Amino acid sequence: MDGKRSNPAKHRVGESSAADRKTMDRRRFLAGAGLAGAAVAGAIPVRAQTLAKPDPAITEVPDWSRYLGDGVAARPYGSPSSFEKHVVRRDVEWLTASRESSVNFTPLHELDGIITPSGLCFERHHGGIAEIDPAQHRLMINGLVEKPMVFTLEDLKRFPNRMNRVYFLECAANSGMEWRGAQLNGCQYTHGMVHNVMYTGISLKSVLDQAGIRPNAKWLLVEGADSAGMTRSIPIEKALKDCMVVWGMNGEALRPEQGYPLRIVVPGWEGNMWVKWLRRIEVGDQPWQHREETSKYTDLLENGTSRRFTFVMDAKSVVTNPSPQAPLKHKGPNVMTGLAWSGRGTVTRVDVSIDGGKNWHTARLDGPVLPMSLTRFYFDIDWNGQEMLVQSRAFDSTGYVQPTKEELRKIRGVNSIYHNNGIQTWFVHKNGETENVEVS
Amino acid sequence: MDGKRSNPAKHRVGESSAADRKTMDRRRFLAGAGLAGAAVAGAIPVRAQTLAKPDPAITEVPDWSRYLGDGVAARPYGSPSSFEKHVVRRDVEWLTASRESSVNFTPLHELDGIITPSGLCFERHHGGIAEIDPAQHRLMINGLVEKPMVFTLEDLKRFPNRMNRVYFLECAANSGMEWRGAQLNGCQYTHGMVHNVMYTGISLKSVLDQAGIRPNAKWLLVEGADSAGMTRSIPIEKALKDCMVVWGMNGEALRPEQGYPLRIVVPGWEGNMWVKWLRRIEVGDQPWQHREETSKYTDLLENGTSRRFTFVMDAKSVVTNPSPQAPLKHKGPNVMTGLAWSGRGTVTRVDVSIDGGKNWHTARLDGPVLPMSLTRFYFDIDWNGQEMLVQSRAFDSTGYVQPTKEELRKIRGVNSIYHNNGIQTWFVHKNGETENVEVS
Repeated sequence: MDGKRSNPAKHRVGESSAADRKTMDRRRFLAGAGLAGAAVAGAIPVRAQTLAKPDPAITEVPDWSRYLGDGVAARPYGSPSSFEKHVVRRDVEWLTASRESSVNFTPLHELDGIITPSGLCFERHHGGIAEIDPAQHRLMINGLVEKPMVFTLEDLKRFPNRMNRVYFLECAANSGMEWRGAQLNGCQYTHGMVHNVMYTGISLKSVLDQAGIRPNAKWLLVEGADSAGMTRSIPIEKALKDCMVVWGMNGEALRPEQGYPLRIVVPGWEGNMWVKWLRRIEVGDQPWQHREETSKYTDLLENGTSRRFTFVMDAKSVVTNPSPQAPLKHKGPNVMTGLAWSGRGTVTRVDVSIDGGKNWHTARLDGPVLPMSLTRFYFDIDWNGQEMLVQSRAFDSTGYVQPTKEELRKIRGVNSIYHNNGIQTWFVHKNGETENVEVS
Repeated sequence: MDGKRSNPAKHRVGESSAADRKTMDRRRFLAGAGLAGAAVAGAIPVRAQTLAKPDPAITEVPDWSRYLGDGVAARPYGSPSSFEKHVVRRDVEWLTASRESSVNFTPLHELDGIITPSGLCFERHHGGIAEIDPAQHRLMINGLVEKPMVFTLEDLKRFPNRMNRVYFLECAANSGMEWRGAQLNGCQYTHGMVHNVMYTGISLKSVLDQAGIRPNAKWLLVEGADSAGMTRSIPIEKALKDCMVVWGMNGEALRPEQGYPLRIVVPGWEGNMWVKWLRRIEVGDQPWQHREETSKYTDLLENGTSRRFTFVMDAKSVVTNPSPQAPLKHKGPNVMTGLAWSGRGTVTRVDVSIDGGKNWHTARLDGPVLPMSLTRFYFDIDWNGQEMLVQSRAFDSTGYVQPTKEELRKIRGVNSIYHNNGIQTWFVHKNGETENVEVS
C-alpha cells in the first residue's frame, strides 16, 4: 500500500492544515490492488449475546427503570436525546473568512431514510441568517408583467392548489474540494451540502399568473431579503415547469436558516438558485448577469473559458456508512448504506463496489423513490476484516450513469469548484478505520 | 341558532371548567339548518395589494435587510423561528393527575404535508420520559423460543434488510372525550393524539427468527424499560406480518419521548401497543391480560360488557383548517385542508361538507398517499362570510367509510373513551371564529 499515506486520524476536518491537504492527493490507490475481496451476501444471521453470558446491563436495574422521568410539559417543542449531541451540522473553520458568509454540513453518516431532519439541513449564507417577522414580509412581482403585485404571507397561503413535494437541494460546490484529489475526511464534508425536505407551498406559475407575464418574458430575477440581497436569474421555462414558492418544510414553517418565511424551490437545480427569504421576483427578457452567475457558480475550464448557467445537478451518490466518520466496528454482518440523487429525474439503480470499481453489485433501493429526491440504498455485507475500496455509482431515469472523478477531470480539468459528481472512494482499513482516497 | 351555545372563546382547552364541559353537549345543530351554502370552487384568483397602494413593509428597508444575521455556527442543531413560538405541543392540565403519566397533543392546525416534525409529535407517558444510555440498553427475546437472546443496539443495526416506512401512530383515546358530545375546542385537542413519521429499523420477524420461535407460539409480550414497565400483548400473526423494531424516526435517532433508543412499530394498530424504550419481547401461547388490555384500552358498551383487543384504528379524518384554533380571517378564496388515515390500508378518497353532511364534495389528495399513513387533503373554497358546518369523511382501500358519531354511539354507547373515529363537525361563524359542535 501507499507508504506515504498519512495517518487517517490526522485528516479529521477542522484539524487539517494546509500542509496536510497538499499531501492528500498522493493518497491514490490502483483499483483493486491489495484487496482480497470481502464476501458479499444478502441475509446474514447476526450473532448476539445469549443469556448464558452475564451482562450487567441486564442483571442490574438501570435508573431509568426505577425512577419517574420528565413529564409531558418539559419539552413543548422536543429535541434529540442528550446522547445524540454529536449529531450536528459542522463547519470548516479555514474554509471561509467569516461565519456570516459561510457554510456548514449535514451529518449524512448519522442519518437514515430519505428525509433530512430540519435541524440538520446544511446552511449556506452570504450575509448571515435573516430573522424576519412574517407579518412584515412581502413578496413583490414586477418587471414584464401586466400588473405589478405585492403579496403578504397570508395572501399566498390562500392560493388554491397548495402542494407538498420532496426535493433534494444540493449546493453546486458540494464535493468541490475534491476536484484536486481526496481532501476532506468524512462524507459530512465531502457530500454534506445536500439535504432532502418535504416542502409546502404553491407553484411559482400560479403566482406569476396573478401578475400576468408578458409575451417577451424570458427570465426571472429572484431576490432575497437578507442583508446580502442574494439574486439569481432563472429561465422562464423552468419557472413555469416545476418551481415552487414555499413557506413550509417537513410539515412546519421553514427554518430561519432555510429562508423563513419564504423561499423559492428550483427542483434538481443548484442550491444557490433556491433563493431564501424571498422578497421579489422580477420578470425580464434576459439574464441579469449578477455576481452569483458570473464570478461565482460558473465552471472554469482548462482553456480559461468558463461553463455558465450549469444549473442542473447531475446524478450522484455516496456511501455514507462506512465512511471516515463512521468506521466499521465489527467483523461479520454489516450494513453498507448511502444516498443517490439526480437533478434530471428519478434514481433507477445504484451499484456498489468494494474493490475500487473492478466489480459492481446492485444495491437495494428503499422507498419511497421519488423524482429529484434523495434515494436511500442498502447493501448488506459480511466483512471478514479485509481492506476494501468502497464506491457507489448512481443511474437515473434518463440513462445517465455517474462518472468517475477521472472521467470528469478529463473534460473539465481541476480549476472549478462546482458540479463535481464523480464517484467517491473510501478506503476501509483492516481495523475498520476508513479514509477518503483516490483510485486510478 | 342554538341560543344556549356559550361563547366559543370560553372553550379554549386548558381554561375550560367542568361546568363548561357539561354545557358543551348542548351545542348541537341540525345539519344544514341556517346555512345559505357557501360557494365551492376550484382555482380562484387571489386579489393582493398592487403597488398603487403604499405599504411601509415595502417602502421602508427592514433591519434584516440592513444588518448581518447570525452565522452558521450559531445553531449546530437548528430550531424554529422565534416567530413560531406558538407552534408547540400542548397539554390539558385537568385531564390527568400528574405530568409523568399524562399526554400532550400535536398542533395539527399548524402543520401541513404528511410528516409530523419530530419535535411536535404528541407524547403519552405512564412513568415520564426514560432517558436511556444507548450503550447500556439491551433487547431480550425469551419465552417460547429455541434460543433466548440479548441484543445491543449495535447488533440490531447490523441486521440485513434495514428499511424505512412511514406510518401514523394514533392513541386509541384520540377523540375519546368527544363520545359524550362536543367537548374540546381545537383539533389539537380533539384529534392531536396522532402523528406520522418515517421510521428506520428492521422487521420484528427478523429479530424473532434469530431466536427461533416455537410452533406453539401465538402471542408476544412487548415490554418497555421506562419506570412504568409498559407491557402489551400482540398476536403473532401481526408481529410476523409488518411490525418493526426501530431506532430511527424522520432520518435521525428516535426522540427520548418516542422511545429512544428503541421502540416497536405496530402499523395501523392503537398507539399504546407501540411500546417505547423496548427492552424485552417474550413469546407465549396466549395474551398476558395485563393492565393495558383489561382495565384500560377496552371499550365499555351500554350492556356492561367490554370489547377487547380492539387493536385496529379505523378510517378517520379531520379538517385541520379551519378549526377552532385556526379561524377564517378573510372572505374570498381560502384553503380548507385536513388529514385522513386508516389502520386497515390506504386512504382512497376524502369528502368534505360545508353544510353539516347534507352535500359532499370530493377533496384533492396530495401525495405521497401511503398505506397506514396520514394522508393530506385540500379543498379550495370561496367563502362569502356565511356560516358553515364543516365536516370530512374518509374512505379506505377496504371500502370502509368513516361513520358519523351518532352511528357509532348507536352501536357502542357513550361509555368508552377509545376508538372514536366519528365524523368531526366545526361550526364557522360569520366572523370566521370556529367551534366544535355536534350535528344531528
